[in-house]
Amino acid sequence: MAVGTPPAIDIPAIPGFRLAATACGLKTNGRPDLLLVQMQPAATVAGLFTRNQVAAAPVTLCRQRLPGGKAAALLVNAGNANAGTGAPGMMRARASTQCVAQTLAIAEEQVFVSSTGVIGQPLPVEKIEAAIPGLAAALAADAWADAATAITTTDTFPKARHRRCVIEGRPVLLAGIAKGAGMIHPDMATMLVYLFTDVAISTAAWQQLLAQAVEASFNSITIDGDTSTNDTVLGFASGLAGNAPITDADAPAARPFADALNDLCLELAHWIVRDGEGATKFITITVTGAPSEAAARQIGKVVAHSQLVKTACFGNDPNWGRILAAVGRAGVPIDPTAVDIHLGEVAIVERGGLAPTYTEAQGARVMAEPEIAIRIDLHAGSATTTTWTCDLSHDYVSINADYRT
Amino acid sequence: MAVGTPPAIDIPAIPGFRLAATACGLKTNGRPDLLLVQMQPAATVAGLFTRNQVAAAPVTLCRQRLPGGKAAALLVNAGNANAGTGAPGMMRARASTQCVAQTLAIAEEQVFVSSTGVIGQPLPVEKIEAAIPGLAAALAADAWADAATAITTTDTFPKARHRRCVIEGRPVLLAGIAKGAGMIHPDMATMLVYLFTDVAISTAAWQQLLAQAVEASFNSITIDGDTSTNDTVLGFASGLAGNAPITDADAPAARPFADALNDLCLELAHWIVRDGEGATKFITITVTGAPSEAAARQIGKVVAHSQLVKTACFGNDPNWGRILAAVGRAGVPIDPTAVDIHLGEVAIVERGGLAPTYTEAQGARVMAEPEIAIRIDLHAGSATTTTWTCDLSHDYVSINADYRT
Repeated sequence: MAVGTPPAIDIPAIPGFRLAATACGLKTNGRPDLLLVQMQPAATVAGLFTRNQVAAAPVTLCRQRLPGGKAAALLVNAGNANAGTGAPGMMRARASTQCVAQTLAIAEEQVFVSSTGVIGQPLPVEKIEAAIPGLAAALAADAWADAATAITTTDTFPKARHRRCVIEGRPVLLAGIAKGAGMIHPDMATMLVYLFTDVAISTAAWQQLLAQAVEASFNSITIDGDTSTNDTVLGFASGLAGNAPITDADAPAARPFADALNDLCLELAHWIVRDGEGATKFITITVTGAPSEAAARQIGKVVAHSQLVKTACFGNDPNWGRILAAVGRAGVPIDPTAVDIHLGEVAIVERGGLAPTYTEAQGARVMAEPEIAIRIDLHAGSATTTTWTCDLSHDYVSINADYRT
Repeated sequence: MAVGTPPAIDIPAIPGFRLAATACGLKTNGRPDLLLVQMQPAATVAGLFTRNQVAAAPVTLCRQRLPGGKAAALLVNAGNANAGTGAPGMMRARASTQCVAQTLAIAEEQVFVSSTGVIGQPLPVEKIEAAIPGLAAALAADAWADAATAITTTDTFPKARHRRCVIEGRPVLLAGIAKGAGMIHPDMATMLVYLFTDVAISTAAWQQLLAQAVEASFNSITIDGDTSTNDTVLGFASGLAGNAPITDADAPAARPFADALNDLCLELAHWIVRDGEGATKFITITVTGAPSEAAARQIGKVVAHSQLVKTACFGNDPNWGRILAAVGRAGVPIDPTAVDIHLGEVAIVERGGLAPTYTEAQGARVMAEPEIAIRIDLHAGSATTTTWTCDLSHDYVSINADYRT
């Protein structure tokens, strides 16, 4: 169940990338769980990782390899997170990339790796190694749907979208695949995102543009406030579009690509929320009139994390007192008697109290919709942020109480 | 449904206090919803209130009156929070205390008031005013069960306990009634607690002892992380025990009373958690080996708030990866490879990885119990704190999705 209808996957081939996916036996249900992507020539790579101090072995390995600036392959498995696995976990992560390097005859330091799934179980790396030769033989330019499917865990649909842009007359392609579902949080929790583009770009500019795009998209969504050990966003740029390489992320020539990147990341982030575990509502929280962007972001986050607000949304209950209470406990100094709250187009709170024109029927109508917009105006400045989340439903509890059993 | 069997209410009369409760029509189900307590002589009063910047009208009024140091009456209603009600809300709160003052012929500034229930609805103060004469006529020294019942909202049982202690040969009584259920958080969310004692004590010493007791009890529990606009802890001391008045909270003579107070507050706090909305598990989270108490408290809080940890407890799932991940994102610098985690007596994580002796059957056995102890040792110092919470169940979602409808 998701909020909205996921579009069909229709990503074209992107020069420089070939993909293959298979079921190697990590998922107990026999579904695809292993993805291999080869980059020829080696791509310029940028990346962002979880801020959780407990980082999975593959995250640690990627962090070590990112400064090299080049990626020749990406290996992703679902079904086992290889987190909380200590030194043996690091050895297994490294062994899997060594196997890829040998099979494809590339440098091991240019192989990137991610894992997602249950934490704390030894990674059955022998299953992965056994599957790699077959994957290498099956690499194809159009296997996007298979790729997006193989990286999912509790997702109810694969997430793969693309954008086109033109840089000084040169057409450029940009595609992304993502997995999300539970534990999604502004600090990128159990979320994997891979972006593939043929743009020519320097490492520094790619890293800067990716970081900016992630902040306004994946770092502005939340499912349950938990942050994972495995979050990863990696961007790979083959350079085959033939544009004059982007070396300055702020230059006008970079604008069309930055716009396409921001837009693609935002759409993928929204699909992650729409597919949040047990989600029945897509909730947009806009905080305006804040003294600073940090203040606006903090309030948006606390409202988005409030179990009481989230259950009220699930229950179609225009319980604005819970929203106001969340604003009041966010740790940001506010004047409660200045706060306005809108539910969709309906003014529900004016200057901290019930709006005189408000009727319960109006509020109920807004809350009954699958998409709910909450707008909070602090009347204390000009900063604005938007945060996206989903409701807290019975299915969320069921999915997370029964995840391993 | 609660975790554990609530004891019968057996509080004796406490010199200086008479109580009465009734159903004045604020609760739509016709249950008792109004409590009046008279203190004769006027009691020495201490209090702590919500840290939410959006505070209910009665909280604002109590804050204004607390510096007076004396209380002659307490009025508490359930069914309407009188929060988010602006200036009219303040007028109505004041009017209700004026009515009590006139009826009992006491000073209005010595009447304290609390409200709990739905936020943002005008308080039907006329219903309260109409009930006050009857309450005044019915005041009795033994109406503790009625009193504890009248202040409940979604609680499944009334909470009323007492302690006895001896101060330099003088017997002293101390009783407390509390309401909790949802929205309970270290900053005292939708929680009302009233303590009544015949001890003789100065205002300053009473305030200090109460604040210390609250920190280790009501501020160390959490249900869902939401903080209410109405939280209130008020302590009333009649002085009729005839002890030499306690004027120094740190003096040896104050010790027996402080111990009784701490113990009573802790038991009431635990009953609030055991009656948390939808709770099926009582979870004790102890963080040891922390570099500071603040660090230990912060980690305990993040683990206690984790929706993933709480749903795992509901699902009897020894999913230690979720605990470790919560520790890692708490914002406290830790060495992940030094962390040990015990579930009950079972060592599950050693130095950040799965304990070699651990078996899934051991973990499952601990998690199947209604009481779960999680111990996290950071091996980074000597500070320790304990936090209590409950699980996140289907009933929590049902209760909070349907609260008003």
